[in-house]
Amino acid sequence: MTTLPDNERPDHEHTYMRWDGWGDPTRAHGLPGGVKLLLAAVLGRTPKAPPARRLAEVTISSPPLAADDLAALAEAVGAEQVDAGHDVRLLHAGGKSTPDLLRRRQAEQAAPGAVVLPASEDEVVAVLAVAVERGLAVVPFGGGTAVTGGLEPDAGPHRGVVSLDLRRLSGLVAFDELAHEATFLAGTTAPVAEMFLAERGFELGHFPQSFEFATLGGFAAMRSSGQNSAGHGRFDAMVTGLRVVTPTGTLDLGRAPGSAAGPDLVRWFLGSEGTFGVITQVRLRVHPTPEARLFDAWTFGSFAAGAEALRNVAQLGTGPTVIRLSDEDETAVSLAQVGNIGKALATGCSAVVLHEGPAGLAAARREATGRVLREAGGEPADAKLAASWDHGRFKAPYLRDALLAHGVFCETLETATTWSNLHALKTAVTAALASGFAEEHAKNRVLCHISHVYPTGASLYFTVIAGLGTEPLEPWGRVKSRVNDAIMAAGGTISHHHGVGSDHAPWLEQEIGSAGIRMIRAVQAELDPAGIMNPGALVQRTTAQW
Amino acid sequence: MTTLPDNERPDHEHTYMRWDGWGDPTRAHGLPGGVKLLLAAVLGRTPKAPPARRLAEVTISSPPLAADDLAALAEAVGAEQVDAGHDVRLLHAGGKSTPDLLRRRQAEQAAPGAVVLPASEDEVVAVLAVAVERGLAVVPFGGGTAVTGGLEPDAGPHRGVVSLDLRRLSGLVAFDELAHEATFLAGTTAPVAEMFLAERGFELGHFPQSFEFATLGGFAAMRSSGQNSAGHGRFDAMVTGLRVVTPTGTLDLGRAPGSAAGPDLVRWFLGSEGTFGVITQVRLRVHPTPEARLFDAWTFGSFAAGAEALRNVAQLGTGPTVIRLSDEDETAVSLAQVGNIGKALATGCSAVVLHEGPAGLAAARREATGRVLREAGGEPADAKLAASWDHGRFKAPYLRDALLAHGVFCETLETATTWSNLHALKTAVTAALASGFAEEHAKNRVLCHISHVYPTGASLYFTVIAGLGTEPLEPWGRVKSRVNDAIMAAGGTISHHHGVGSDHAPWLEQEIGSAGIRMIRAVQAELDPAGIMNPGALVQRTTAQW
Repeated sequence: MTTLPDNERPDHEHTYMRWDGWGDPTRAHGLPGGVKLLLAAVLGRTPKAPPARRLAEVTISSPPLAADDLAALAEAVGAEQVDAGHDVRLLHAGGKSTPDLLRRRQAEQAAPGAVVLPASEDEVVAVLAVAVERGLAVVPFGGGTAVTGGLEPDAGPHRGVVSLDLRRLSGLVAFDELAHEATFLAGTTAPVAEMFLAERGFELGHFPQSFEFATLGGFAAMRSSGQNSAGHGRFDAMVTGLRVVTPTGTLDLGRAPGSAAGPDLVRWFLGSEGTFGVITQVRLRVHPTPEARLFDAWTFGSFAAGAEALRNVAQLGTGPTVIRLSDEDETAVSLAQVGNIGKALATGCSAVVLHEGPAGLAAARREATGRVLREAGGEPADAKLAASWDHGRFKAPYLRDALLAHGVFCETLETATTWSNLHALKTAVTAALASGFAEEHAKNRVLCHISHVYPTGASLYFTVIAGLGTEPLEPWGRVKSRVNDAIMAAGGTISHHHGVGSDHAPWLEQEIGSAGIRMIRAVQAELDPAGIMNPGALVQRTTAQW
Repeated sequence: MTTLPDNERPDHEHTYMRWDGWGDPTRAHGLPGGVKLLLAAVLGRTPKAPPARRLAEVTISSPPLAADDLAALAEAVGAEQVDAGHDVRLLHAGGKSTPDLLRRRQAEQAAPGAVVLPASEDEVVAVLAVAVERGLAVVPFGGGTAVTGGLEPDAGPHRGVVSLDLRRLSGLVAFDELAHEATFLAGTTAPVAEMFLAERGFELGHFPQSFEFATLGGFAAMRSSGQNSAGHGRFDAMVTGLRVVTPTGTLDLGRAPGSAAGPDLVRWFLGSEGTFGVITQVRLRVHPTPEARLFDAWTFGSFAAGAEALRNVAQLGTGPTVIRLSDEDETAVSLAQVGNIGKALATGCSAVVLHEGPAGLAAARREATGRVLREAGGEPADAKLAASWDHGRFKAPYLRDALLAHGVFCETLETATTWSNLHALKTAVTAALASGFAEEHAKNRVLCHISHVYPTGASLYFTVIAGLGTEPLEPWGRVKSRVNDAIMAAGGTISHHHGVGSDHAPWLEQEIGSAGIRMIRAVQAELDPAGIMNPGALVQRTTAQW
């Protein structure tokens, strides 16, 4: 492992995502005409949403941190890296779920009391020490792309909330060409990491929808899954080591591949969602930039037939990098691609497949997968569909913004289960959505795809559009709660993609049991006895903990 | 997941391994003539070991449990399943490391105060309740194949030790042909599990050296690696769910593949070595019995060249089920195979490779691997060498028994690291062994192979024979301690295969740090506040814990 001189770091442009929507404000767009027509057909007239609120128009429900708190934090990171300004506080007020965005339209909003931007692990240690000493909660903030309430400025029993923005903790720390390992500071965004790796002929290949803005530390804290996870594994599987600062000590974990030296503590931090400490470095398995990238599209007569085909591929291990299958409704809106929504309605179910690697190996993998898909009744379709999916795959959140502006509620949700339970789970979620929206008198359309496959099962990803009126937050809360109950009753997991946050926390005990909750709380109490780390996320803490 | 009527269970033959050696006593053998010649050449004259001691000749250093303890345990599992007899206690006195076997020759030995054999999860719950109430330590006992002191009858601060023998908790609980998942009771041995799976056209394919006697629960508790782990992953990777009984509650974990619902608590129990609770069920990914099994042998000019070849295979993912490389010395004793030791000394380094799967896919994988090995300088060798390795792979422990009887000390040890650190680690371990044996004036021979490969690194497995005299325990303790120090200094893990137990516990803090140790202790304290679970293993507990 070569440690690079003084870390290779990118310039830190302190740019922020659009505060009440997704991504780069200059890439925001209106609704394509085809989509408008489709929406009119499906949902009827929808009420125009109230105009977006400007930052300056919002009242923050709590004051900024007191001057002595700010002075103590300034001691830790330097005065210019502590910001308790109105706008910056609001820019760290939450993540990017649809409810998050809807709350951005309210006159009064919650926000952290200050934002601090450490530039080193030592500064993170110092910030946590200040927070413990002064009774402040700390919410680690990476790319700000969370969608399950993991960035709520929840003080718990403390006096205030510090948003610990990790953007200055960015860069490549070490690169091991022989071991195919790269160590990054945790605040490095995925595109910046790919830039550093590309210069060396390597790539990480982790492409969740949040790719353009999310950080490596965030991926680790949330157990992120990416669109190429069929080939490279979930982010979990890429992490070979972590450094973590906790209020009671720093850990350097992941000594060797395949260790049997007790439980794998790296896995204890993956999914801890900032409640155990702050991940400061992530060591990752990387791979050479593939020589070949072979996209294919396939069509199946039914979702059931397509799912069987994907199951066979996953269980045989023929090695696709991407393999995903849209259901009939999603296929009908042309793989849910921005540019194609509303265009020629396809029949059956479409699948997108990608094989990568050295040219010969990629071709062999493609052929092996193709044989399985064909035997399962698949037919090759126009490969342009796959290339078009690839081209548009990070654009969906911009479309959501346009839909919300048009008065159309739009959200995604996801779960996973075994192959044998997959259709029952899909039916249960679809039924819960249908009955939930019926209760709210909301016309709707539900699209679904299999986004990730494993030898033993797969994930289901649902996209929902609905006419929930001008005040959709509470109605959606009721629908979502009903869906979560249905997922648990049908044996699914409360999250495959997005984590627990505060939104799914009430269902976690059903998933892991009361003893499981106690295990997580025991580690929180050991590493963070004051309970300052992200109090709103993962488990509903008891007052006894504080 | 079909739950099978009343579990499919094997008959429970209460057979035990040879008490002071490995395996089936009827398969014990003397030293082949060729081995004797080789030993004489390498080690010179070795003193004949003292004759094996019969069970009846041994004094146990502590009394059996008191009558009221035994009566309470009898309430939990039935009187006929509580055994405090002299012989049965000694049969549960430890594992099968060479030091374990040498201690079996001593006049006075430690042993648990009684052995209990629960037949259901409820009975396990009842036994733990009795143990908590009466202040007894509990050591879970699977196949008894542990080699790092994980079965020591260490009472900690408690009044006595109960060996919880899980052999009656054996059988197939559920089988899911679609999801390729099988759920077994934790006391099921690997061969019995394979028997149940073979009847259904499936296999597990986990083949550690302990395969013939070890249990699935033991594999999980110790994070076992197997000879086919290159293809199927370590046992860690096969486990999709666990049921665990702890003194304060039962957990049912592993709800869905690829869940992101908080930390993966299954991974918290893997490697917990019986110190968190008793694993009662293991759900596993299985795969169809391969249509083809293609064995190949390859030769490389040097260990370095062979290691480079294996690295390329692991990083490209061409898909071998087995791939292992012996160093020059191990190759010289013909792949360390029983029948061939001492025969024609090979030159260079031998590798054994196996590809499996449907015929076409296995052939394609073999071709892809072969291309990589050839490009890295490998030359095909007689495939009989590979078949012979396959045939003899579970026999080495019997040879150890013969060596020990012949007065030759024989032990194995192992570690892992990144590809970039592999040769430095091998050199460091070899040097520590050489200087350690020199200090003890012991002639010796050290053999090494790469047994497991990962994209980022590999494991090193050392076999040591030495003339350590008639009292080898203390000298070996000094050598082993020196080796462990060297492993830590050189960046290796304290264990890739065998776990921590009591033998490696003093080094674990160097591997995971004091905060890591505190995390493990926090979970122990939460799940087992009385500290009854396997007090001698994994972490050196503090009195504050009790």
